[in-house]
Amino acid sequence: MKPMESEVLREQGHIMIDFIADYYKNLDDFPQDFPVLSQVQPGYLRDMLPDSAPDHPESLKELLDDVSKKIIPGITHWQSPSYFAYYASSTSVAGFLGEMLNAGLSVVGFTWVTSPAATELEVIVLDWLAKLLQLPNHFLSTGNGGGVIQGTGCEAVLVVVLAARDRILKKVGKISLHRLVVYASDQTHSSFRKACLIVGIHEENIRLLKTDSSTNYGMPPESLEHAISSDLAKGFIPFFICTTVGTTSSAAVDPLVPLGKIAKSYGIWMHVDAAYAGNACICPEYRKYIDGIENADSFNINAHKWLFANQTCSPLWVKDRFSLIDALKTNPEYLEYKVSKRDEVINYKDWQISLSRRFRSLKLWMVLRLYGTENLRNFIRDHVNLAKHFEDYVAQDPHFEVATTRYFSLVCFRLAPVDGDEDKCNERNRELLAAVNSTGKIFISHTALSGRFILRFAVGAPLTEEKHVTEAWHIIQKHASKLIRNGNY
Amino acid sequence: MKPMESEVLREQGHIMIDFIADYYKNLDDFPQDFPVLSQVQPGYLRDMLPDSAPDHPESLKELLDDVSKKIIPGITHWQSPSYFAYYASSTSVAGFLGEMLNAGLSVVGFTWVTSPAATELEVIVLDWLAKLLQLPNHFLSTGNGGGVIQGTGCEAVLVVVLAARDRILKKVGKISLHRLVVYASDQTHSSFRKACLIVGIHEENIRLLKTDSSTNYGMPPESLEHAISSDLAKGFIPFFICTTVGTTSSAAVDPLVPLGKIAKSYGIWMHVDAAYAGNACICPEYRKYIDGIENADSFNINAHKWLFANQTCSPLWVKDRFSLIDALKTNPEYLEYKVSKRDEVINYKDWQISLSRRFRSLKLWMVLRLYGTENLRNFIRDHVNLAKHFEDYVAQDPHFEVATTRYFSLVCFRLAPVDGDEDKCNERNRELLAAVNSTGKIFISHTALSGRFILRFAVGAPLTEEKHVTEAWHIIQKHASKLIRNGNY
Repeated sequence: MKPMESEVLREQGHIMIDFIADYYKNLDDFPQDFPVLSQVQPGYLRDMLPDSAPDHPESLKELLDDVSKKIIPGITHWQSPSYFAYYASSTSVAGFLGEMLNAGLSVVGFTWVTSPAATELEVIVLDWLAKLLQLPNHFLSTGNGGGVIQGTGCEAVLVVVLAARDRILKKVGKISLHRLVVYASDQTHSSFRKACLIVGIHEENIRLLKTDSSTNYGMPPESLEHAISSDLAKGFIPFFICTTVGTTSSAAVDPLVPLGKIAKSYGIWMHVDAAYAGNACICPEYRKYIDGIENADSFNINAHKWLFANQTCSPLWVKDRFSLIDALKTNPEYLEYKVSKRDEVINYKDWQISLSRRFRSLKLWMVLRLYGTENLRNFIRDHVNLAKHFEDYVAQDPHFEVATTRYFSLVCFRLAPVDGDEDKCNERNRELLAAVNSTGKIFISHTALSGRFILRFAVGAPLTEEKHVTEAWHIIQKHASKLIRNGNY
Repeated sequence: MKPMESEVLREQGHIMIDFIADYYKNLDDFPQDFPVLSQVQPGYLRDMLPDSAPDHPESLKELLDDVSKKIIPGITHWQSPSYFAYYASSTSVAGFLGEMLNAGLSVVGFTWVTSPAATELEVIVLDWLAKLLQLPNHFLSTGNGGGVIQGTGCEAVLVVVLAARDRILKKVGKISLHRLVVYASDQTHSSFRKACLIVGIHEENIRLLKTDSSTNYGMPPESLEHAISSDLAKGFIPFFICTTVGTTSSAAVDPLVPLGKIAKSYGIWMHVDAAYAGNACICPEYRKYIDGIENADSFNINAHKWLFANQTCSPLWVKDRFSLIDALKTNPEYLEYKVSKRDEVINYKDWQISLSRRFRSLKLWMVLRLYGTENLRNFIRDHVNLAKHFEDYVAQDPHFEVATTRYFSLVCFRLAPVDGDEDKCNERNRELLAAVNSTGKIFISHTALSGRFILRFAVGAPLTEEKHVTEAWHIIQKHASKLIRNGNY
């Protein structure tokens, strides 16, 4: 037995392809066999597996039997057509093929020389995508900026807050770390606070500006302006604003135009986290949501969320790549390699946390080429239309209400309060959520907005069609009726 | 056209499997067609690809033609049997199948509920691996410790230095950040310094203790003891030691037994970075290199380096998982989910930088089951024997010398100096490296040890056999002879 034999890979690879194709076929044809939200109990797997690794090889057949019987019941089916929770993490045939090819070639392009194609394709594909998104020229590789694929939006915000930290500390001295302050809204993704704490920003200097329904949960520019002035007056050093286009909670949109002007006037780094909704901006009709991007220093989307790229594919563009490199570069002797003197090359190890990196641009390139931009726009439009369809159902049922203005493919809704009793309303919506998800037929999630418990219906899985949305609504309605019928609502 | 259709996945997946199997077959049968180190020039790809993404879909055939003609010439073949650079990033049939299955199921197990199997399999497989490595019980999930798969060793050291930082700052107050000091040797991976800078440790407080050939580049315990005493006397706060078993430069081994005693006596967090060599410790005969691990607070190996797991699979074990969770937890409302009250579950989002995470345990589980532990040990032993074989060649040639004691599958060697002229020797070894790598027939790398330019021959690619090592030696010898014959050596 050897770790790699091409003919074993061929034989077993074909078996695995059929296994995965059958999974998708069954997911669609026999939904009752695949509870969208896994219904297993904590600790279920421990008793089904041995206590230690086997001494001798087992067959692929044995392994796949175990996957079917022991693993699949314990997975929550993110790719199910009836998955409507959180935001989707959408794969596609092209994204899957891209992951396969990456795993097959298995190169590690941390510096240019360790696989020139891995670096150069990433530069090219991110320029393609920047053009599709109509990003300002300073985000293209031709100037001082450029793109890099991070694993996640969390990594993206961490590296930019770090770059901004080091840029400001170079001016004010690192002993002033405790005076640095950052701004975001109370709707900003939790990874922003986490990133700030990692790089040493004091927790009490993280200003999460309050939002409410009056701005549909977008950050009010006057609050930002006021917070900055007040901090400056107290001797703090404002250096970073994290804005969001399409928040995780309700897909709220921060108004980039006024926020960007404020950031610019104070010389503060503005990051735009458009992890989910940024993908929609490849459609001309949604591009307006990132108007004002020209005043941002960095911009991030998760192509694994809604550009069908499969997991951990998070393009980040920065206006000044040298600020990233200054904060992240390493120069060990064992990685030194001189390419021809006249050419400068990109070494992506200096744009990210980790040295090693996957050849992620491959799958992005394949998604763009195998679908073409027109189809990609239509995939997104289909999802938005399905969300509209669901929103219409909600709006037509007097027991329910739409909770926020919908911009993209997320509908925030709830059973409406009766006689203004918000506490009871929250309780009923919690019950409804639990009841619906315990059917295994659909999976939706929730959030809190101004103390209200809100249900979230997010369209984005790659197999979802109108019939799944209609069925989901019927399930929700049926369980709501039960709650109502039972009298205590 | 839709993003996912099972029968399109099936048809195109089979084509991709054949493409990848053919790649491995050709890599082995027609090495002349695949220069191990890519020989393209910077910017080569820009002219070969269009300036923007296509509007309309292209066929998989067109895409794969482009992969063959434009991408493959620009990749450095990490999986080639004649790849001997850096350390290998080894795939295998099982590791590849695991990546496929992960990409196919495409679940995101950030909390237990979002895919219980993804969390529970990770816990179980890391317990299996901990037992194989004979790690102390406190690293198992049954106590306060446990394992988590990070993407890379860089992420692993970042999260543990962060956990240790927050643990000490809780005692001494965060305003004392500038007094914190960390220790490692001057051979420690560059990611350690990078991690320290990210979390705000002052650069001048990173003590990289000098090593030399007298300890075969292992960290001298007396230097550590001395540095700590001296720092304490000056009012600094020592809190972290990064030790290495198998350094990136020369596979040096820090003596964990005495270092661990020192760490313990001062209450300092000791991390063991065994990214490469830790994998060999599944063989009883190599386990001795991590003797002393019982005094470590955290331990990391890269299973993608030498456990055939394919990319970004870096198991990390910690003695106190709550220190990790305290530093990394987030609690957004939209991820709240109560499982039954009596059971506590692991939410791996709180053990790492990112929220999203891949189902990486799947491939580790598949490697362990499809090969069995005996075969895995033998794969490692085969590589070590091939390295011994190469070392014998070097030792028998009077023009060459072995530069450090070899422990694992890395041989550090060089053309020996003539008349003690070290500068000229360095220059000649640089020339030899460039000449050998420009043939495209093999790829080796280099390092610097005590100012000497050293060649590195690291065995670890999954197709490598004795004939490849012998051929590599002949190529090196041939080019060395040319240098010698040309008179100026």
